[in-house]
Amino acid sequence: MRFRAVALIVGILALSIDADLSRAEQADRMPTANVHWQIAARELPPPLAASPELYEQIAHSPQPRIRTDSLQNGIDEAQWQKLVAIRQEASNALDLDKLEFTFNVSITRMNVEGVNVFQVKPKRVRSELSQARLLYLHGGAYVFNAGKRGAYEAIVIASYTGVTVWSVDYRTALQAPHPAALQDALTVYKRLASSKNVNAIALGGTSAGGGLTLALMQKIRDLDITHPKAVYVGSPWADLTKTSDTLYSLEGIDRILVSYDVLLRDAAKLYAGTEILTAPPVSPLYGSFDQFPPTYLISGTRDLLLSDTVRVHRAIKKAGGYAELNVYEGLSHAEYLANLNTDESQQVYLELAAFLKPLLTD
Amino acid sequence: MRFRAVALIVGILALSIDADLSRAEQADRMPTANVHWQIAARELPPPLAASPELYEQIAHSPQPRIRTDSLQNGIDEAQWQKLVAIRQEASNALDLDKLEFTFNVSITRMNVEGVNVFQVKPKRVRSELSQARLLYLHGGAYVFNAGKRGAYEAIVIASYTGVTVWSVDYRTALQAPHPAALQDALTVYKRLASSKNVNAIALGGTSAGGGLTLALMQKIRDLDITHPKAVYVGSPWADLTKTSDTLYSLEGIDRILVSYDVLLRDAAKLYAGTEILTAPPVSPLYGSFDQFPPTYLISGTRDLLLSDTVRVHRAIKKAGGYAELNVYEGLSHAEYLANLNTDESQQVYLELAAFLKPLLTD
Repeated sequence: MRFRAVALIVGILALSIDADLSRAEQADRMPTANVHWQIAARELPPPLAASPELYEQIAHSPQPRIRTDSLQNGIDEAQWQKLVAIRQEASNALDLDKLEFTFNVSITRMNVEGVNVFQVKPKRVRSELSQARLLYLHGGAYVFNAGKRGAYEAIVIASYTGVTVWSVDYRTALQAPHPAALQDALTVYKRLASSKNVNAIALGGTSAGGGLTLALMQKIRDLDITHPKAVYVGSPWADLTKTSDTLYSLEGIDRILVSYDVLLRDAAKLYAGTEILTAPPVSPLYGSFDQFPPTYLISGTRDLLLSDTVRVHRAIKKAGGYAELNVYEGLSHAEYLANLNTDESQQVYLELAAFLKPLLTD
Repeated sequence: MRFRAVALIVGILALSIDADLSRAEQADRMPTANVHWQIAARELPPPLAASPELYEQIAHSPQPRIRTDSLQNGIDEAQWQKLVAIRQEASNALDLDKLEFTFNVSITRMNVEGVNVFQVKPKRVRSELSQARLLYLHGGAYVFNAGKRGAYEAIVIASYTGVTVWSVDYRTALQAPHPAALQDALTVYKRLASSKNVNAIALGGTSAGGGLTLALMQKIRDLDITHPKAVYVGSPWADLTKTSDTLYSLEGIDRILVSYDVLLRDAAKLYAGTEILTAPPVSPLYGSFDQFPPTYLISGTRDLLLSDTVRVHRAIKKAGGYAELNVYEGLSHAEYLANLNTDESQQVYLELAAFLKPLLTD
């Protein structure tokens, strides 16, 4: 019956399917067991055509393991707290003071109407970009990376682009579910938009921060306040349901995320709170991409969120916007951020700098 | 020892790996069995976020089967001839006369210095594009699609873009191995470049035709003759070795190509003849992408040649060129061509038309 309904709609609309109808239709098409394909096991060599640095790192990494521990039955709040603590301890090895020095930036903690913000200022601000700001939203499945370590990529971006970055330490899902993070981001954006010292704003973020960046852009457009001049989204988590093709095809191949089940699935529920997962502010892919500013997107052939990324790219282009998609050979989810000394990572940030410069100095 | 050499080179070059060295290095890094990952079997639903038309077609398609017949031991010339005959018969169902009518084009057979060419002229040529030509190179693993049916995509392109297309009926690998096809393409290109009635040329092709397009562009640049203004490559076969990451990760998931083994592997050998597979005119990814004109690239999340496509995109951008990458959710190799009535296919050709127009009317 489902198929008949779709066939009918296809028949009626012929070659001009309405985008909104198509989205509604999509939510209605859950796969049935009989049309699932059984994909055979396979051997996967390290990606030979990646840069030597990336190739080496992957060749010397243990194979990603799909979780089989007790967490696979679901993660409760106490377990989340424990996971966050483990992650926090691990990230203490990340010496941000040293990173500040290496990347030649200075970090100032600020408070914007109750929201914690880390301002990352390059020691050498490009003069033509002195009044530009990038609002940065960190990744971590909406659960991890609270505090200063959330500013990690902001440091890299500030250094490469010469733009002062405001990294928003938004409330994570354990502190408060949606719409808390989005509200925090909007609060900080409004401050930037109303500042007399700021003449151009970009938005940016990776992973959950990429999804949140897209949700923020949709909110800004709907509120009809000053639009940003550019958007950067790295491997965005833009659909919190298990819909995207590569969530299936690249499971166990992406060495960073590994699998949608269990961690992403449960983080999605925790973040959404009482909201449904297909609500656009939670999963921006179900919203409109009208009036988006030029957008720069990053993914990889091993990225579990490759589909999320290419779907966002298509959605912006279909809405008449300009978007630049870049997919890197052999790269897992947000791996450009995990390995800053790879050629891939340098391409990502050098091209981001080249992309932003004309847009923020116009 | 291999790893030590790479580590040493990485150490010496630090953050600025020379591209040529990196390419040479790459050829030296064959995977060793102990670093291969064992990827588990999985279930794959149809791509829910594809267009309703594409979703329906995939949901109702049999699962692609990796070849287990006698051909898996290698394809000899008699078997190739048989495969070509089977394919030819199947493509007789493709009514090109009807297609000419539907797409409102007229096809004229021409002979350019011994090379057979099908000129596909839109009934309504855009006046500002009347002196533009697109040289088209068809796909078919360098073995299939000789004759008029090779002009199939040329008809679609002429219709969507309003540009007159010259579809080159180059010698297939069964008629003569490399460099025959490239020579034929170059012969036709030179004719266009020297014509007084032509003021702008684009190159384009899908699959093997995409790889041949890139090899032709490299040849044109090396010969330093008039450059084309734009290039289109759909899911290009740009590396004939089994190197690209998605040849492994998407095996059995791409419903058009299914697997590199056996057909692509043996077609590569047949086409290369006495040349090595990593020679740039055979596998353009091992050549230089300097001075490429703006290039428009297409692939999909199920495309066995997704890695080839993104590697070409990166190579052009790293060389300082402009290239537009478009990856479609759930799309297998060149599937935009197999299903012209999908929303994906229309996006591909509408955006190609928009991409070419300013470049060919400058």
